[in-house]
Amino acid sequence: MGTRPNSVLLLLVLIVSILLGTDAGVLDNRIDQCNLPDALVQEIRGYQPIVNKIVQRIVGGEFAGKTWESLAELVDTFGARLAGTDQLERTIDWVVERMGRDGLENVHTEEASVPHWVRGFESAQLVAPFKKNLAMLGLGTSVGTPRGGIIADVIAVESFKEFEGLSPVDVKGKIVVFVPKWESYGKTVVYRSKGASVAAKKGAVATLIRSVTPFSIGSPHTGGQDYEEGVRKIPSACITVEDAEMILRKYRRGETLTIHLEMEDRNLEPFMSRNTIAELVGTTYTNYSVVIVSGHLDSWDVGVGAMDDGGGALISWKALTYLKAMGLRPRRTIRAILWTGEELGLWGGRAYKEAHKAEEKKEFNFFFESDIGTFEPRGLDFSGNKDAECIMREIVKLMGALNATEFETPTDGGPDISHWTTRGFPGASLLNKNEKYFWFHHSAGDSMAVEDPKNLDKCAALWAAAAYVVADLSVSIPKDVTD
Amino acid sequence: MGTRPNSVLLLLVLIVSILLGTDAGVLDNRIDQCNLPDALVQEIRGYQPIVNKIVQRIVGGEFAGKTWESLAELVDTFGARLAGTDQLERTIDWVVERMGRDGLENVHTEEASVPHWVRGFESAQLVAPFKKNLAMLGLGTSVGTPRGGIIADVIAVESFKEFEGLSPVDVKGKIVVFVPKWESYGKTVVYRSKGASVAAKKGAVATLIRSVTPFSIGSPHTGGQDYEEGVRKIPSACITVEDAEMILRKYRRGETLTIHLEMEDRNLEPFMSRNTIAELVGTTYTNYSVVIVSGHLDSWDVGVGAMDDGGGALISWKALTYLKAMGLRPRRTIRAILWTGEELGLWGGRAYKEAHKAEEKKEFNFFFESDIGTFEPRGLDFSGNKDAECIMREIVKLMGALNATEFETPTDGGPDISHWTTRGFPGASLLNKNEKYFWFHHSAGDSMAVEDPKNLDKCAALWAAAAYVVADLSVSIPKDVTD
Repeated sequence: MGTRPNSVLLLLVLIVSILLGTDAGVLDNRIDQCNLPDALVQEIRGYQPIVNKIVQRIVGGEFAGKTWESLAELVDTFGARLAGTDQLERTIDWVVERMGRDGLENVHTEEASVPHWVRGFESAQLVAPFKKNLAMLGLGTSVGTPRGGIIADVIAVESFKEFEGLSPVDVKGKIVVFVPKWESYGKTVVYRSKGASVAAKKGAVATLIRSVTPFSIGSPHTGGQDYEEGVRKIPSACITVEDAEMILRKYRRGETLTIHLEMEDRNLEPFMSRNTIAELVGTTYTNYSVVIVSGHLDSWDVGVGAMDDGGGALISWKALTYLKAMGLRPRRTIRAILWTGEELGLWGGRAYKEAHKAEEKKEFNFFFESDIGTFEPRGLDFSGNKDAECIMREIVKLMGALNATEFETPTDGGPDISHWTTRGFPGASLLNKNEKYFWFHHSAGDSMAVEDPKNLDKCAALWAAAAYVVADLSVSIPKDVTD
Repeated sequence: MGTRPNSVLLLLVLIVSILLGTDAGVLDNRIDQCNLPDALVQEIRGYQPIVNKIVQRIVGGEFAGKTWESLAELVDTFGARLAGTDQLERTIDWVVERMGRDGLENVHTEEASVPHWVRGFESAQLVAPFKKNLAMLGLGTSVGTPRGGIIADVIAVESFKEFEGLSPVDVKGKIVVFVPKWESYGKTVVYRSKGASVAAKKGAVATLIRSVTPFSIGSPHTGGQDYEEGVRKIPSACITVEDAEMILRKYRRGETLTIHLEMEDRNLEPFMSRNTIAELVGTTYTNYSVVIVSGHLDSWDVGVGAMDDGGGALISWKALTYLKAMGLRPRRTIRAILWTGEELGLWGGRAYKEAHKAEEKKEFNFFFESDIGTFEPRGLDFSGNKDAECIMREIVKLMGALNATEFETPTDGGPDISHWTTRGFPGASLLNKNEKYFWFHHSAGDSMAVEDPKNLDKCAALWAAAAYVVADLSVSIPKDVTD
């Protein structure tokens, strides 16, 4: 995932409303008991044998290990897949061809315009008080330096608050190094996304950001950044936790540090990429009340994006492949969408929303997205109204064979489907044991070594089983769409 | 640490001897009860108040946090300290000056010749079937490639056994990539140390080795390697776990992989470095029955060697500083030795052994070494005869305030003191919670981020207290020196 909606405010409102004993609109009764019609509960429970069969075949049967093998073949063949690159477009062609071989239906792509940011030659070197190469990665959408680079003294701070206390006179002409302590991704990533403009407003010539990770073995972690409208665009890169903390300690001891930063990164005209789509067409409903399963196919250009989000893309694709091979076709269509351009700002999802907006309430029943890891699955992270929640709580209970019956809400891990879930469409993200997710995130560590074949099977099984049940139910999932 | 004696054989002998109920020489009775004279046991127990005072002052008193601060200042000022570099020699000068400021006695250096290996420009790139830069590090003592590098196809194997099955016809002219699974450092490091010569015997032109680590986030881990006498010397480097496993998978799928390897590494004439020495002179015995506390000051040239072995060096130095500041002077001299040239083959220890050989049995009472991390301490890892063991078991029991009363034997973690302990001198290594040690070992991850101020305090306290008690006892530690 590239960005995730901040749910802290929502959680705060929930806690306050509980403490005050008040009703808080959509939050009312959220964590209370459900009162689904008994017939519907019985209907959902009736899916237990078919869920168990799906799990058995994917985790212990002929499909065991296949998802990992396909993912390895994909990332070993194409490597990293940054939006705007030929690697991504060739990957899309390859996936389309393979989806066809798998016998999937309506396999096609739909265009999505994505930013075209190109990483050029990049280098950062501490030149005083001693020479040291600083492992670094320019941040997505960063401008480059002038030819020959920038040589400037350093201002190092731990927080925006500390930076606020500095005078523009002191900051002007300097390279600002932000060394925030890791709190959480949502809290700490603001230094990466906003640091350049915060520093530029006081006259800084470039920014270097401590990589946004709780744990490091000397690798920088890249990611997107956003220039504020009307503020001068200055080059921005991440450096390792190790070097950032060293720079902060030396700066605080009163040493003068000088860095030579050179970046040939540049932003070109937008590039036309594609979302990759395949279906298992429903027996009863074909092109409406569709159940989406999704992950993004693009990645950052370091590592190979096996975790972010190769795993999510593969389980979404292969969920359909395995259901089809098992002869399981639900009443509604299940549609796999492998988004493009997620890392540079959710562009694939945005284009798809716009293209399907006219009939969206009719077209879409439910959105699944896996983009926070495919480690051992725990269950589902849900977003939607109370009635939808009660149905999904009941469906998650079917996942006992996977030991994945946890249910959390509201969801915090579905960046691409947030185009719909933030407007009241029901959706769910794959809850999984992703405590180490940010250790590898956007770094050279995002590789097949992170992905475990058995866990990937379990994620694929959960995905296939949950999508099947949602798509086959006698009722569609309720929604309160706000616009 | 750079290398560690393999204790597997010894352990096997121990297990077999227990199973057979036989006596096995020095192993006899090793794990049975001790029968120390009651007076000696009481004498050792009498040190409990002084041990508690040392612990209190270092962990909770005026010295708390000081060891970490000194280590940070050292590594932030000088960075990495490869033997043969000016950085190491300037570090030695700085430590000598600081030891003097600390009021330590007989502060001096003693010469030790070390290999002079120089890392030049290094690069490895997969050029077919697609281009990918491979993060890599030449191995210590590796020769370079011809100018312009080597471009060759790849042979990838998981083990020496698999490599044995290959014909020299197939290997000739190839770059051999060894991708051993991590078993343990002792078992897996043979691929790094021997891989080049194993491959060269069948005509390979270079070797690349999967980094010797159980866990990776995209960083290569360097280390020493040894050319076999009479075998052609070919360039040898480590690559990341991620890339090595990718190469093995692609090779096994039948793909032809081509790598361009360029290394300007070279071996120069030996360099004269120095061991760094300071004492807290004993009240009763001055230049004999000395208790050594030690760690090595040199490091690899990636990361900054905060863990390997800055922590071990600092606690050895500061143990004396803190005892002196507390006015605690034992009967025997405690001597801190910060070894040089450990990483390139235990050269500092070797030189010291030779220079002090004439009177070594008289001169040395006990050897402490910390070179397997300064994480939270657990106790001591002992090597020596049964009587010595019984005394040290009793001393470790005094470390309850540190929750560090574990005792293991025989030691597996004292590379520099192995010059003595393998010949019967008694010694101990610092047992600590170093499960993640090899995650950072010889990589860019070996930084202050690995070192925790509180744990470093505890290690320093254990070091100071144990050295004090050994140095002050009414008896010297028994030994059976074999040559």
